Amino acid sequence: MSEEIVFDCLHAEIVNYCLDNRKDQNDLATLEYIGFTTGYRLNERLTRDVTRFKDELETMKFICTDFWTLIYKKQVDNLRTNNNGMYVLQDRAFRFLTRISPGAKQLEQAPKFVAFTCGLVRGALSNLGINSTVTAEVQTIPACRFHVEVNRS
Amino acid sequence: MSEEIVFDCLHAEIVNYCLDNRKDQNDLATLEYIGFTTGYRLNERLTRDVTRFKDELETMKFICTDFWTLIYKKQVDNLRTNNNGMYVLQDRAFRFLTRISPGAKQLEQAPKFVAFTCGLVRGALSNLGINSTVTAEVQTIPACRFHVEVNRS
Repeated sequence: MSEEIVFDCLHAEIVNYCLDNRKDQNDLATLEYIGFTTGYRLNERLTRDVTRFKDELETMKFICTDFWTLIYKKQVDNLRTNNNGMYVLQDRAFRFLTRISPGAKQLEQAPKFVAFTCGLVRGALSNLGINSTVTAEVQTIPACRFHVEVNRS
Repeated sequence: MSEEIVFDCLHAEIVNYCLDNRKDQNDLATLEYIGFTTGYRLNERLTRDVTRFKDELETMKFICTDFWTLIYKKQVDNLRTNNNGMYVLQDRAFRFLTRISPGAKQLEQAPKFVAFTCGLVRGALSNLGINSTVTAEVQTIPACRFHVEVNRS
């Protein structure tokens, strides 16, 4: 019996709550926002004693390793970048997708299992001074790609 | 760096989200409800391989030990009952209150840090066939008493 299930269950309930049809604030944006604030604060505590990262890529690597491991008990499997502010983080067994079975109908439901994490990554980066847009792409459950676009303005 | 902080941070954000002044659903009931559904599902998984409890007191002891430890990394310090459906669970260092400093102003804020857990206990009991009303009483931070009243109707 792992203590991870506490986090899993709480996440599941927030998904349900945010996407409850009876509510008017029935959208993924709320879920993304809860992820954002959670990620922002988590990183505040996680990086308290860490020296500043030397550049954007170092920061991104930290998200893929330490940050991801803290939350999902594994690292991101693959990180790619075009060296111009675009990053793709691939997780071949994304935790919130490992319990649902593959299939067209399940794939339709995928956005609600990744919205929180899009916000989480955006919030974690924001805390480290990087403004970004994060989207997710699920092609085959439980694999997921998170696309991070750094906003340089 | 404990993995517990993930759960802590997520809880903190849900508190903020549910009690956000800009929202119309600005009340503790929402928080209690999220706790209820979380507790219900948690116990569903936690008691899957457990034999049925012989009576209400046994069930309550399970909440005070295994269930509490899973979530708060410690047991309830004291359990009292009037043997007629009333139970008082005392936690002398309740996790969500350990990070706020004692004081009158902080005490005023206490309800928002205990509402989720009231729901959590109610949900866990409901999953085990016990309908109850759960309230919390904070007299000295970080100590907290949870009052469980079993509804026998």
